[in-house]
Amino acid sequence: MADHVYKSIELTGSSSTGIEDAVHKAIARASKTVRNMRWLEVASIRGHLDKGVVAHWQVTVKIGFTLEA
Amino acid sequence: MADHVYKSIELTGSSSTGIEDAVHKAIARASKTVRNMRWLEVASIRGHLDKGVVAHWQVTVKIGFTLEA
Amino acid sequence: MADHVYKSIELTGSSSTGIEDAVHKAIARASKTVRNMRWLEVASIRGHLDKGVVAHWQVTVKIGFTLEA
Amino acid sequence: MADHVYKSIELTGSSSTGIEDAVHKAIARASKTVRNMRWLEVASIRGHLDKGVVAHWQVTVKIGFTLEA
Amino acid sequence: MADHVYKSIELTGSSSTGIEDAVHKAIARASKTVRNMRWLEVASIRGHLDKGVVAHWQVTVKIGFTLEA
Amino acid sequence: MADHVYKSIELTGSSSTGIEDAVHKAIARASKTVRNMRWLEVASIRGHLDKGVVAHWQVTVKIGFTLEA
Amino acid sequence: MADHVYKSIELTGSSSTGIEDAVHKAIARASKTVRNMRWLEVASIRGHLDKGVVAHWQVTVKIGFTLEA
Amino acid sequence: MADHVYKSIELTGSSSTGIEDAVHKAIARASKTVRNMRWLEVASIRGHLDKGVVAHWQVTVKIGFTLEA
Amino acid sequence: MADHVYKSIELTGSSSTGIEDAVHKAIARASKTVRNMRWLEVASIRGHLDKGVVAHWQVTVKIGFTLEA
Amino acid sequence: MADHVYKSIELTGSSSTGIEDAVHKAIARASKTVRNMRWLEVASIRGHLDKGVVAHWQVTVKIGFTLEA
Amino acid sequence: MADHVYKSIELTGSSSTGIEDAVHKAIARASKTVRNMRWLEVASIRGHLDKGVVAHWQVTVKIGFTLEA
Amino acid sequence: MADHVYKSIELTGSSSTGIEDAVHKAIARASKTVRNMRWLEVASIRGHLDKGVVAHWQVTVKIGFTLEA
Repeated sequence: MADHVYKSIELTGSSSTGIEDAVHKAIARASKTVRNMRWLEVASIRGHLDKGVVAHWQVTVKIGFTLEA
Repeated sequence: MADHVYKSIELTGSSSTGIEDAVHKAIARASKTVRNMRWLEVASIRGHLDKGVVAHWQVTVKIGFTLEA
Repeated sequence: MADHVYKSIELTGSSSTGIEDAVHKAIARASKTVRNMRWLEVASIRGHLDKGVVAHWQVTVKIGFTLEA
Repeated sequence: MADHVYKSIELTGSSSTGIEDAVHKAIARASKTVRNMRWLEVASIRGHLDKGVVAHWQVTVKIGFTLEA
Repeated sequence: MADHVYKSIELTGSSSTGIEDAVHKAIARASKTVRNMRWLEVASIRGHLDKGVVAHWQVTVKIGFTLEA
Repeated sequence: MADHVYKSIELTGSSSTGIEDAVHKAIARASKTVRNMRWLEVASIRGHLDKGVVAHWQVTVKIGFTLEA
Repeated sequence: MADHVYKSIELTGSSSTGIEDAVHKAIARASKTVRNMRWLEVASIRGHLDKGVVAHWQVTVKIGFTLEA
Repeated sequence: MADHVYKSIELTGSSSTGIEDAVHKAIARASKTVRNMRWLEVASIRGHLDKGVVAHWQVTVKIGFTLEA
Repeated sequence: MADHVYKSIELTGSSSTGIEDAVHKAIARASKTVRNMRWLEVASIRGHLDKGVVAHWQVTVKIGFTLEA
Repeated sequence: MADHVYKSIELTGSSSTGIEDAVHKAIARASKTVRNMRWLEVASIRGHLDKGVVAHWQVTVKIGFTLEA
Repeated sequence: MADHVYKSIELTGSSSTGIEDAVHKAIARASKTVRNMRWLEVASIRGHLDKGVVAHWQVTVKIGFTLEA
Repeated sequence: MADHVYKSIELTGSSSTGIEDAVHKAIARASKTVRNMRWLEVASIRGHLDKGVVAHWQVTVKIGFTLEA
């Protein structure tokens, strides 16, 4: 691991189901173009309210991945 | 949206079930007196412990709503 | 409550299931050696990514418990 | 001033013109129902983007006012 | 406690005597209109200086109270 | 909105005119390569001083845009 | 001092009297089991409210002490 | 630049016109006694409210300048 | 007030008596060389521990004063 | 400089040698694909521990570079 | 890793040589009583000044280690 | 120590060698005009990049010194 360099990007996933699912949505989208993802960190948890209920959750995550040498 | 003014209030919901449910409890209570709620942001996630387990979750949220003109 | 002194410790639980379960794991481990746990506060929510999915969640909590007099 | 108690509320004003104008909008709306406003503090400056330009600015302010005795 | 929803408000009390007294002033004012206050948290401690001494302390507190169901 | 994933990037615009103009410069540059920009958040406001005046403002913004599915 | 290693722990003391007294309570309890305490830093000042007054103050402190070599 | 040492000071400028002008006021005052000012960073944006409008803006800036060798 | 520029400095006062007294010590020292002090803000509250008790409190304050035109 | 727009990215470099070397590793990797790098800011310093020693340092840096017009 | 629970402790190491060495001192002391240390994070870097030079560095680190099941 | 008042100033030292050396540069410059320096705290670590390498480190430190009575 000592020779690696990582890059972090910040994505926001949204889901009408819950917090973990919003994160899964962000990760799933990232995995289309980013390889070697290693970790995530939740930066903020927000939600959109409509008609007095949580219409969907919006979770912002930092995602770290290995840059190939 | 450019003509709107929003107000934010801070509520703490609690639930023995989980984090999202504690938020739903706070939103449900707010919807009794507040109209036009638009967003929420989780400010802190705490819990009350009893007999070595999480007796209930306490989630503090900021809730934003449109002020009528 | 006015006469009590509390101590806080910081643990990280991990779970392949979700955020609440990672907290439950940390609390369950703490309850083996710590009595009179009273509250928790989530300090960070992270995750380990493997093969493009969240392999497990890592949730760091502060746990407060009463010190016996 | 030593005998006063102040309350703070948090509003978000929006404007297509600029940052100060968004604050003025929030203050103008507050002045309809709140008397004795004394200070403001900018908490965040955001904007809504549409077609590649700033469609309007959204500035969140804390506003402090004197509570009558 | 699991069924309760709490609201937080932010007040600033002032006192020429000291920090605790400024908090007491804020709580006393709040108790005129708010029932079921449960906790406070000090957000900032400031002071007004006049003629080279602290003329009065200004302590901002968040106050949490139970919303009736 | 529930199905979208957003990405945030961080740019710094500069302007000899003022804060909003520095943001406009950053957004204008981003719009050359990024589509579907949705929001911005000001992260810091700095300035370069020369001969005792503000030679130009440097405003750092986070810009969020929709990732196409 | 250059050869020392210090450990920090976090305690919360409570007192119906005031902020300093809550700190003294935390330090007094710590001194039963910890030797060579060197410094403290106040991390938060909270209070429990009952019947519209501060029933007791809850002050969280970090306490640093020398680890014996 | 590698041989320089900089000092930072913190000033608050006020203006009835707007945020940039409050900064210009602070810089203009500093330039009477400080040479070689190099950068500024906005630390807070506040305002004084009077009769329901922003009577003047109060902007606190950190100002960095080169110390002569 | 709109024409004033303020400067902030940071001092730490210490006292064996308590928090307010440590602030008074810092203000008293500042008043020897600084005129027109207007406000203070507590930045941190620390203490030196000796023989298991608080030997003295160390309170760091920002102090703002008017710069003469 | 007034006409430039900068972008910031976040990388983590690792090194078994020390903090500066971990930064150099991150910069060296970035220089393969990024031109016109202008500044860095250290965001966090972490380390991986193995067999009771620091196996390697992990330093996260924000790197700013000029976007070509 | 999914089944592990980690504990974090906070230590301050000091060294007349430099920042990394102060961390090594803290880790070396911890390794006398703690097994399975996994990571560290630098929380603050301070120094003691004597006769106009840095007499020693004081680096505070959080150290995480695996709790045995 | 209980009778002392300390002042903090903020300097930025720069060095092409490394982080500690940038701090030493700042301290050396301060020692020309400030007596009785007692501590430092690193506030930020930045660097200037030129031709794809760290041309010099820029480390901002708070320096505390005793004010003579």
